[in-house]
Amino acid sequence: VPRVRLTLEYDGTDFFGFQFQASGERTVQSVLETALNALTKDSSARIFGAGRTDAGVHALGQVAHFDVDWRIPEDKIATAINVNLPPDLVVRSAEIAPNGFHSRFDATSRTYRYVILNQSQRSALLGRYSWFVPYALSVEKMQAAAVRLIGLNDYAAFGTAQTEEKSTVRLMSRIEVRRWKQCLLITVRGNAFLRQMVRALVGTLVAAGQGHVTPSEVTRILESRDRQALPPIAPARGLCLVRVGYDGVRLT
Amino acid sequence: VPRVRLTLEYDGTDFFGFQFQASGERTVQSVLETALNALTKDSSARIFGAGRTDAGVHALGQVAHFDVDWRIPEDKIATAINVNLPPDLVVRSAEIAPNGFHSRFDATSRTYRYVILNQSQRSALLGRYSWFVPYALSVEKMQAAAVRLIGLNDYAAFGTAQTEEKSTVRLMSRIEVRRWKQCLLITVRGNAFLRQMVRALVGTLVAAGQGHVTPSEVTRILESRDRQALPPIAPARGLCLVRVGYDGVRLT
Repeated sequence: VPRVRLTLEYDGTDFFGFQFQASGERTVQSVLETALNALTKDSSARIFGAGRTDAGVHALGQVAHFDVDWRIPEDKIATAINVNLPPDLVVRSAEIAPNGFHSRFDATSRTYRYVILNQSQRSALLGRYSWFVPYALSVEKMQAAAVRLIGLNDYAAFGTAQTEEKSTVRLMSRIEVRRWKQCLLITVRGNAFLRQMVRALVGTLVAAGQGHVTPSEVTRILESRDRQALPPIAPARGLCLVRVGYDGVRLT
Repeated sequence: VPRVRLTLEYDGTDFFGFQFQASGERTVQSVLETALNALTKDSSARIFGAGRTDAGVHALGQVAHFDVDWRIPEDKIATAINVNLPPDLVVRSAEIAPNGFHSRFDATSRTYRYVILNQSQRSALLGRYSWFVPYALSVEKMQAAAVRLIGLNDYAAFGTAQTEEKSTVRLMSRIEVRRWKQCLLITVRGNAFLRQMVRALVGTLVAAGQGHVTPSEVTRILESRDRQALPPIAPARGLCLVRVGYDGVRLT
């Protein structure tokens, strides 16, 4: 049975996260499986995603896979699925994956983008896709704090492990802050992430940008491995999973 | 009684246009008047807008005015009104206007931006703010057509006059098409516009970009003054009123 790899884009506002919920909430996985089942006339399609984005988190480049024994030509798969998807979810591309490919276990990196709207009034057009922060933020202080969070570390202070995992050690290869018009854009890349970890990192950077937390206090929070020490986490609406990488060596 | 000038931003998706509808639909004007009345404990506030955007059209820089005899300091007006507004409508700035200022009659220019998403699959994140056009478009052909639409002309083929106006002559001072990543951005500036005129201009440019209409056919459509000759108009979702200008000489 061929395995199909999908690249997904979604507006997370009206999804209860990526993963199927036993409570029947609208999730990316459940909407996608319903669309696939309509296409295959079979109710067994099971989607596996590279990252379990929370409720409200968006994606430009989520990756997922599923197995199917239909005979749709590879270049028609994306369009065939999209016919059955709502406006806030779309398959950007689809291809037949190599034997044994796994969207989650084979992923070597995840890149997230966080948008902070840093101006005096909120925005009606950017409201769904940004965190509105009306007070002054120092990009220099945020970048100085970011440097303390890069590397191979135990991030237990910044999130909890997914259910079936034990280690809270992750490799953060990139954390960058830059100003773009009225926004601050924060890019975070790591091998993998704990639950709510990007939002916890961003919350800490914002506390640093306000001058509430110094770079050495950021190091102390990291070394404490204690969530109690953490500044408030950033809201989901500003977060977007931009890219999942499959190149290079995979850390466990 | 002081007159207040507002600069408004809104996501037009869930509004039935700017202007009050006797049928009670949710419009920018009605939501704003409700918010003002909550603030003034008076139900007589009346909003006048510079442009009557259609249902689904967005704004970054709509201008409106109203008269009010409250004593809120000028620098607190925007924040006071915003407390009573929903997420898809915001006052970006508010100021006391000069005596006799009129948002609509004093405006000398309106600048609109239209976004076309020109790629093979639709977008979940840009869907509310763009027209998805999956076929190839030539920017060069669109720009060549745009040149035919600039100037002081009778645009009767491109729209109908607002109820209380008679002339369909308008001055288009700028129509520009450029590619930006996966999008085409079209900027249109004129002294004023007929109903649905920007969307009619964009529809014609897209027909030109596909090669369905040549530049000389565009001139013939313009000179026909006949709406029957017009290619299909562009949908509202891609359109945004970016700026209303009050500088320079006003044409009637």
